[in-house]
Amino acid sequence: MNKYHGRSTTVLRPRNTKEVSEIVKHCNERRIGIVPQGGNTGLVGGSVPIKDELVISLGNMTNIRSFDDASGILVADAGCILQSLSDYLAPHDHIVPLDLGAKGSCQIGGNVSTNAGGLRLLRYGSLHGSVLGLEVVLPDGTILDQLTTLRKDNTGYDLKQLFIGAEGTLGIVTGVSILAASAPQASNNVMLALPTFDNVLPLYREVKRQLSEILSAFEFIDRRAYDLAVKHGQGRALNESDVEGAECFVLVETSGSKREHDEEKLNTLLENLMEAEPSLINTGVLASSPAQFASLWAIREGLTESMSKEGKAYKYDISVPLHKFKEVIDTTRDHLQSKGLMRDDAVKHVVGYGHVGDGNLHLNVVADAYTPEIESALEPFVYELVAKYKGSISAEHGIGVMKTHALPYSKNAVSIEVMKRIKHLFDPNGIMNPGKVLEL
Amino acid sequence: MNKYHGRSTTVLRPRNTKEVSEIVKHCNERRIGIVPQGGNTGLVGGSVPIKDELVISLGNMTNIRSFDDASGILVADAGCILQSLSDYLAPHDHIVPLDLGAKGSCQIGGNVSTNAGGLRLLRYGSLHGSVLGLEVVLPDGTILDQLTTLRKDNTGYDLKQLFIGAEGTLGIVTGVSILAASAPQASNNVMLALPTFDNVLPLYREVKRQLSEILSAFEFIDRRAYDLAVKHGQGRALNESDVEGAECFVLVETSGSKREHDEEKLNTLLENLMEAEPSLINTGVLASSPAQFASLWAIREGLTESMSKEGKAYKYDISVPLHKFKEVIDTTRDHLQSKGLMRDDAVKHVVGYGHVGDGNLHLNVVADAYTPEIESALEPFVYELVAKYKGSISAEHGIGVMKTHALPYSKNAVSIEVMKRIKHLFDPNGIMNPGKVLEL
Repeated sequence: MNKYHGRSTTVLRPRNTKEVSEIVKHCNERRIGIVPQGGNTGLVGGSVPIKDELVISLGNMTNIRSFDDASGILVADAGCILQSLSDYLAPHDHIVPLDLGAKGSCQIGGNVSTNAGGLRLLRYGSLHGSVLGLEVVLPDGTILDQLTTLRKDNTGYDLKQLFIGAEGTLGIVTGVSILAASAPQASNNVMLALPTFDNVLPLYREVKRQLSEILSAFEFIDRRAYDLAVKHGQGRALNESDVEGAECFVLVETSGSKREHDEEKLNTLLENLMEAEPSLINTGVLASSPAQFASLWAIREGLTESMSKEGKAYKYDISVPLHKFKEVIDTTRDHLQSKGLMRDDAVKHVVGYGHVGDGNLHLNVVADAYTPEIESALEPFVYELVAKYKGSISAEHGIGVMKTHALPYSKNAVSIEVMKRIKHLFDPNGIMNPGKVLEL
Repeated sequence: MNKYHGRSTTVLRPRNTKEVSEIVKHCNERRIGIVPQGGNTGLVGGSVPIKDELVISLGNMTNIRSFDDASGILVADAGCILQSLSDYLAPHDHIVPLDLGAKGSCQIGGNVSTNAGGLRLLRYGSLHGSVLGLEVVLPDGTILDQLTTLRKDNTGYDLKQLFIGAEGTLGIVTGVSILAASAPQASNNVMLALPTFDNVLPLYREVKRQLSEILSAFEFIDRRAYDLAVKHGQGRALNESDVEGAECFVLVETSGSKREHDEEKLNTLLENLMEAEPSLINTGVLASSPAQFASLWAIREGLTESMSKEGKAYKYDISVPLHKFKEVIDTTRDHLQSKGLMRDDAVKHVVGYGHVGDGNLHLNVVADAYTPEIESALEPFVYELVAKYKGSISAEHGIGVMKTHALPYSKNAVSIEVMKRIKHLFDPNGIMNPGKVLEL
């Protein structure tokens, strides 16, 4: 890194793509490291300088360039805040096919650069499918204009895909063309209590079969996580007596175009589940009002806050096969137990929750304090566990600077070697977000 | 090309990835050109040797490696025929998120390599979203194993995307991991006659709003194309008196999980459309039986055959903004008229049809015979027209060998330069499907 002599603590805020291009060209000629920055809401340090890189903030580039309400195609500057795009689309009966907790400050360019997942992935798929075009300033300052508004275009390599999830290491995304979805007319949800984790997969299968195209979320919450949410007053849903003996919970959401139809499907599903012998569920609560809909979601969305009220959370955002969710949580807890770390003044809770539909488990280890002892018990243990199941050590948060050392647990040597060659091809001087994704 | 000394007319049919790797390594060391070949159903010559390249057919690699009916993730050898995969998934209540006319012989590896579009794209999105992993033999024989079965994995660059649509020029796809969709429980369709093309977009907007998540096709057919289909006995749907004065037609398909709900939505749509003043449509016919459903589709699917019965068809598979569909057809006809070519012994018909939802127009110029005069009147005229609207000269068929010269009409110089550098990075000896996508 000592070949970079950027002015540290400098943040530039260009107003348009041409200015970005000129800055990058200047930096490339002088070998000045650059960190592209969107809303700076990432969780793995991808938008933070390591040393003395120049920060290029996209925050001044906030124009919506075009929207076609027939095709649903939106073209916007990279600095547009996700919530602003949602607000812009609402009167046009469309939504961004992406929703995140950080929507109030994250930017669409950052979303694309980190391949953000979030709550709508089950329904609308990943950004690799919904992003139609990008405008990118390459590390030598060249503007790569692939800002097409076409849904189909099979003319040569789909270069834009490389920048989706590259975390700003191959260039700076300055413009995004994305396919917005029709706004659903009605949403509903139901919280289900399950006697055993073994029922989660049969339940998922049944729910997919019955709800099919209106299913928009299938979220798993293990018992300990649920209890912590309740303890800390997040949401309020099921009677204590009803959930006695429940090993885990599932929150199902529907979104569709006709409320009566969707409610009928959801009611029928719940009746079928309750009447089945043996039943896959202990009980289920269907939201009967917007307030209850919000209250059921509040349990799921309040989990992060509950953890932080309990102590310091080690958070692992992993993908593993669905049927291994519980095994990963239990094995981690057993491992910490065997190290004598499951005690009130060390690790208090090992809990799991996440997007079953996406195979994405959020494993949380809540400790009294962050300590080297706990950390060394957890890493590389968790990464090795994920690798054993051919999982991903970062389902949606990315690699950033925090996980570069762990990349080999999810990507083999050939893949990493090809990534390095791609990086070198685009950025031979290594100025673009150095030390992110790939180690220096 | 004269640096390649492969044994022409040689076809090798390896049985597994290791054999593919060994063959490719051998060829790379001896600078022998290779053409990877799937079902050989492409329309732009992408799987045909230009000179004396060795053909590697994937036809012997037909194993289904795994299927998980909870997640819907299917892993299969590249040589699996699309129809075989459909047949395999049917008893598991799943479908391949891709459907093509050539499904009886095209292979999933070829589908991925050409980024095939087809009839389900409107509903299930492109392969860039539904393909989860690939196994690829690189041009030096190295096996790049990215055959993950994870729906989410943000660990480094998404390399597999480069091979989707690269038409075998960067490596040979040998294995595919793909997200299958839940099989719809019910499908229905309606054929609508429109007084004027100007109503197509308002109609599309209204249909999307009312049918939303169950809309699975919105196909446009212009009057001349419809008349040719009827003339040649393709399907049988609307009364002659009802369609008098109709300028074009739209076929709408729904697919959903509950027949009664879907039919109610479709009936309501049709009633609303008929009752509106002024109405967007002249008339509409709703399929009331599986036979009628098939008969309505037969009009759309019989268009290609009708053209070939009328004469020789120049076919352009283009993407242009939706509101330009008619303009492109009319402008082309006017241009041929001005050249004196619109006459019975030259160009008989200029017709258009296609996937409105995808912005994909199939422009067909039906002539008495293929002649240099017609060809030079059409090209580069049509490509320039597409470029003027920032469209794509190949929406779904790809570039192959037929359109390499036309690539600059849809991709700018910077994009093509980056493509060339990517090609050189993966295939410095130029052995992998030489002369396809990029000119030699």
